[in-house]
Amino acid sequence: MSSPEQSLTVSLPRSEVDRDYPIYIGRGLMADADSWARLLTDRDVVLVTNETIAALYQDKLVSALGERRVTAVVLPDGETHKHCGSIETILDQALAQRHERRSIFIALGGGVIGDMTGFAASIFLRGADFIQVPTTLLAQVDSSVGGKTGINHVSGKNLIGAFHQPLAVVIDLESIATLPAREYAAGMAEVVKYGLIRDRAFLSWLYAHQETLLARDPETVAEAIYRSCSNKAQVVAADERESGVRATLNLGHTFGHAIELTQGYGTWLHGEAVACGMVLATKISAARGWVQPTDVADLIAFLEALSLPVTAPSEMTAECFLKAMAGDKKVSKGTIRYILLRELGQAIIVDDITQQEIERALAD
Amino acid sequence: MSSPEQSLTVSLPRSEVDRDYPIYIGRGLMADADSWARLLTDRDVVLVTNETIAALYQDKLVSALGERRVTAVVLPDGETHKHCGSIETILDQALAQRHERRSIFIALGGGVIGDMTGFAASIFLRGADFIQVPTTLLAQVDSSVGGKTGINHVSGKNLIGAFHQPLAVVIDLESIATLPAREYAAGMAEVVKYGLIRDRAFLSWLYAHQETLLARDPETVAEAIYRSCSNKAQVVAADERESGVRATLNLGHTFGHAIELTQGYGTWLHGEAVACGMVLATKISAARGWVQPTDVADLIAFLEALSLPVTAPSEMTAECFLKAMAGDKKVSKGTIRYILLRELGQAIIVDDITQQEIERALAD
Repeated sequence: MSSPEQSLTVSLPRSEVDRDYPIYIGRGLMADADSWARLLTDRDVVLVTNETIAALYQDKLVSALGERRVTAVVLPDGETHKHCGSIETILDQALAQRHERRSIFIALGGGVIGDMTGFAASIFLRGADFIQVPTTLLAQVDSSVGGKTGINHVSGKNLIGAFHQPLAVVIDLESIATLPAREYAAGMAEVVKYGLIRDRAFLSWLYAHQETLLARDPETVAEAIYRSCSNKAQVVAADERESGVRATLNLGHTFGHAIELTQGYGTWLHGEAVACGMVLATKISAARGWVQPTDVADLIAFLEALSLPVTAPSEMTAECFLKAMAGDKKVSKGTIRYILLRELGQAIIVDDITQQEIERALAD
Repeated sequence: MSSPEQSLTVSLPRSEVDRDYPIYIGRGLMADADSWARLLTDRDVVLVTNETIAALYQDKLVSALGERRVTAVVLPDGETHKHCGSIETILDQALAQRHERRSIFIALGGGVIGDMTGFAASIFLRGADFIQVPTTLLAQVDSSVGGKTGINHVSGKNLIGAFHQPLAVVIDLESIATLPAREYAAGMAEVVKYGLIRDRAFLSWLYAHQETLLARDPETVAEAIYRSCSNKAQVVAADERESGVRATLNLGHTFGHAIELTQGYGTWLHGEAVACGMVLATKISAARGWVQPTDVADLIAFLEALSLPVTAPSEMTAECFLKAMAGDKKVSKGTIRYILLRELGQAIIVDDITQQEIERALAD
């Protein structure tokens, strides 16, 4: 302000705590009481999960948590419940049970549970710690790493939320075995994404291991998860708040969100919509001469082997995509930013995609 | 976890941005178009205020904001509206008007508006900037500085929220003139607090300027605001998340919150409850021999000159206080932490206050 009578500056420490955190990947971690004791010390727990996951893992996990106080909040299953009301349910129960700032929230479930639990923890008494225990492949390789939390709004997906880093991520490989085929495939779409945007060697490795991945061979799946998390962690470390390179993680997501929004959340799984969106982005990249037609064919073949959708719903025109994408929160000053592939294994952010390019990719 | 098959660490930058921010204090700042243009550049605005404040200042401020897009959200006045529903109203309107991450939220009003606007901004698209334009003395010297934002819950005050630092604080001294006497006095309670907890020279200065403060002499009030903000900024800089010294800012607040909770939010103004709480804390400090009986008398005389309450509601017994305080979020592992005065101008955190000590202070 110009010539105020007085002014002063509030200096803040650059960071109040060291916010690095570990990701543990292994078999049987969920039921390992010793590990939980080391991780949680004497702290109480607010365990958040959904009805489907609770039936599979809640007893096993709670047994491993020992004598500490555990308040379990069991929400209905599904993306349609990723709204403000569920956050209120979590907070109401945590407050009714008189949990304090030292209590730790544990998110046991897929991305929806992880996003909601992290968000609830971030606003509970102005910020409680939380631990991610992702039980879907999608959550393991994507949403559990990076600190994005939030809920949907009638205006769009993930429009309300916070950046809140977990204390740790615990990935128990045994959860892969119980995953429905559709969810496993949806997670694999995000795995392929890391190869496409920044790790060509990983992409080749995935294509070469298609059979063992389809068979959910634990060693192969563990390696795929590790390399995915490693890629994501590197991106997040470079750019926590998505001002630059983190945006490349959105390959296929801008188109994908448009599909989810238009079809109604939950009709397509997130990973399915991303798979289709990645094919569109790769086709546009090929049309610009940045990747080869064979790269598009290889991607489609891999996704189809996983029974993932590779074409958009037939009623969705380019105009329909553009209209839905204009409401995406990644829009900056009215310009839609897209992620394309400058070459195979290297993403690029562009804002000059034309309606014609989308039309061609849809028609192709 | 013990011997996981694989683990990796996510490294985060220590801070994504420089989070220091300026506090401007002066006359006519709200209507100064040039200053706003420099502060906001070309960014759109979500202006949040309440019905009372809107009638006084909204047109003046909006005129000074120029040609940029301004979405005004006018909430009902009062602490009883500091709840989740109001946050939803703010977010719904900001999203309906298609605001983006670059839009800046402006909180025009007292502490309730500031807390809610800051919280809404913190969760809008996972974090938008906001500017505090506090119009009450209480908000100017207390809640607008320090980054605490949030809402109340049926279980207690400010139980849901976030730490979110404003981009700037703009204190227009002209707002002091229109302040109801009760609100002015309530703000002065927090001003005195800084003297009591860490600035004995300021306390003496306040006592010496009782008459001009009562007359709301602009120069004197400006000096009182400046020295209060300066004290608070130093505390916040040392301890953003209230793990240590920041807790001393809660002098009188633990007792005060108990009064507000028991009487129903809004019956007593926050500053009134704090005034009464500070008297109780100072009396207990005196009973321990840490401050002089004359220090208690001086404080009571100053507060009474401002027509602030210095005794608790007669029906509130020590037991009643203890029960209400047990639900306060500052409780750590079941132990209630109190702020007392080790000497005049120096606060100390204790957890060993007995019911008898409270009874004596209430009876005194």
